[in-house]
Amino acid sequence: MPTSRRIVLASRPQGWVTPDNFRLETVETPPLKDGELLVRNEWLSLDPYMRGRMNEGRSYMQPQALGDTMGGGTAGAVVESRHPRFKVGDRVTGYLGWQEYAVSDGTGLYAVDATRVPLSAYLGAVGMPGVTAWYGLNRIIAPKAGETIVVSAAAGAVGGVVGQLARLAGCRAVGIAGGAEKCAFVVDELKFDACIDYKSQDVSKALKDAAPQGVDGYFENVGGEIMDAVLPRMNAFGRIALCGLIAGYNAEPIPIRNPTWFLVSRLMMRAFIVTEHMEVWPGALKELGGHVATGTIRYRESVAQGLDSAPDAFIGLLKGRNVGKQLVKLV
Amino acid sequence: MPTSRRIVLASRPQGWVTPDNFRLETVETPPLKDGELLVRNEWLSLDPYMRGRMNEGRSYMQPQALGDTMGGGTAGAVVESRHPRFKVGDRVTGYLGWQEYAVSDGTGLYAVDATRVPLSAYLGAVGMPGVTAWYGLNRIIAPKAGETIVVSAAAGAVGGVVGQLARLAGCRAVGIAGGAEKCAFVVDELKFDACIDYKSQDVSKALKDAAPQGVDGYFENVGGEIMDAVLPRMNAFGRIALCGLIAGYNAEPIPIRNPTWFLVSRLMMRAFIVTEHMEVWPGALKELGGHVATGTIRYRESVAQGLDSAPDAFIGLLKGRNVGKQLVKLV
Repeated sequence: MPTSRRIVLASRPQGWVTPDNFRLETVETPPLKDGELLVRNEWLSLDPYMRGRMNEGRSYMQPQALGDTMGGGTAGAVVESRHPRFKVGDRVTGYLGWQEYAVSDGTGLYAVDATRVPLSAYLGAVGMPGVTAWYGLNRIIAPKAGETIVVSAAAGAVGGVVGQLARLAGCRAVGIAGGAEKCAFVVDELKFDACIDYKSQDVSKALKDAAPQGVDGYFENVGGEIMDAVLPRMNAFGRIALCGLIAGYNAEPIPIRNPTWFLVSRLMMRAFIVTEHMEVWPGALKELGGHVATGTIRYRESVAQGLDSAPDAFIGLLKGRNVGKQLVKLV
Repeated sequence: MPTSRRIVLASRPQGWVTPDNFRLETVETPPLKDGELLVRNEWLSLDPYMRGRMNEGRSYMQPQALGDTMGGGTAGAVVESRHPRFKVGDRVTGYLGWQEYAVSDGTGLYAVDATRVPLSAYLGAVGMPGVTAWYGLNRIIAPKAGETIVVSAAAGAVGGVVGQLARLAGCRAVGIAGGAEKCAFVVDELKFDACIDYKSQDVSKALKDAAPQGVDGYFENVGGEIMDAVLPRMNAFGRIALCGLIAGYNAEPIPIRNPTWFLVSRLMMRAFIVTEHMEVWPGALKELGGHVATGTIRYRESVAQGLDSAPDAFIGLLKGRNVGKQLVKLV
């Protein structure tokens, strides 16, 4: 059996995540038992929710235990199998964590067709981030043609899909992202109608131009000042899909400054975790896979090379350095 | 035609409402035209939403114009009629404002049966406050038997009905109110399972005992610190009906300190204005009228005597001095 490297949680962050919160370990892969298979992970997905799991205390996911391999979505190939459902050479996605090889009993592992769309897309637009976008937009915002949909972190893996799905639904899609490069990507490549650079623009003022009819749906990944700027621009009966609040993940939570806007505009806000709505995944993945295969939905990847680059890449993700889906290429 | 007194908005409040924001005027009632009727208002309803209308600027209701008669729900008797739908002696409810007599063309005026329930109840449990409770509970919180429902301003006209309807739905009803007298009323008369006195208790700690299974539905009238204390006690998939934020009506809006709780517990919050959902009124009023007639739903009234007492009574309402429905008796 091969030697494998993995990254474990060495300590819990105080504020910003630092490299010494992680530890790289080299381990021998144990031999397979009946019903098990060995996967060589080719891609590791880095996602904002991982920050929450590094903390102790109540959250929507179990905290990551100290010393355990960091959890994370992966895509790879079956290299050995004593499992009836998988054979050597199958390409699979699953939740095998920050490691090069993993033994699995097949739980949560899915064979995918890596000829139709690239394997890595199953960690992005045709994976958890894509379904997250699909669920929040379709099941919470429920856009009607002609409405205006705003999404924060628009250049990210989730936000980029939100706006493109909104456009496909006949809506005006307005992104909010940090920096000129991200905004150019959002407008030029993803074909959003507009994108606001919160680092150089006053979001509230810029929304007057970018969303002249007001905002009917808001897909929130960020929170804090950006949310405070969007709320006053929302139309009556606006809907907010609360997916993340990355602005407040590192320190004290950031308040919603003026909840009166909820009353003034009779807003609805619902938070969600896409893994609690598995019933929508097959349909959403089919739809997203079709759009990606035909190029109707586009995406970009930020790729870090090698497992040992994962901690820095993750810190970069939390600081907004990536454009599009943040991946680590392990092979 | 009779001489009538009315109260107009004299100036807009800076912070707390003061008596000099109002002016009492005496006017001659104009003679009726065809299609009009004259109502003698017997009861005037005082409600928190009136505070919002005293401000300038965007809100969910048009601001009250300076010099105009203060708007407000009323119940009274037809004393003269040239209107085909109303005859002298009919008891009617409507939105005739802070005045003793009003000429109406019948718009928004409804004849009611004041023998089944007292006329004043049509301004409370069998009126707008009752339907507000009904809508927020049934259409937003949608309680299931066995769940725990918390309501702030529980001794108020809306809150009292929320908890009683929740109990009728098989739920545990927990009130939050200010002061021992109000809490005694909520538990002893309205038969809530528990009531927390936010003036003498730590709401967060008290909720551990009062809602040992956590909070599934929260009917919010107050906001601020009380909301901050309830959010961490909410169960996964909890629902919040946002009816009012009276804690922040007078000055700077009060933030929601930690919106992360929405993510942690995947909460849904929806704000509403009951007059935008007229389709539920007939059914809700029928249900509420039945419960009040049989004594299944109980209520209390704080009654101020005479039109000139209305400003002080309204200020008292905003300061939480009333128990139950705040009314002004005009006759």
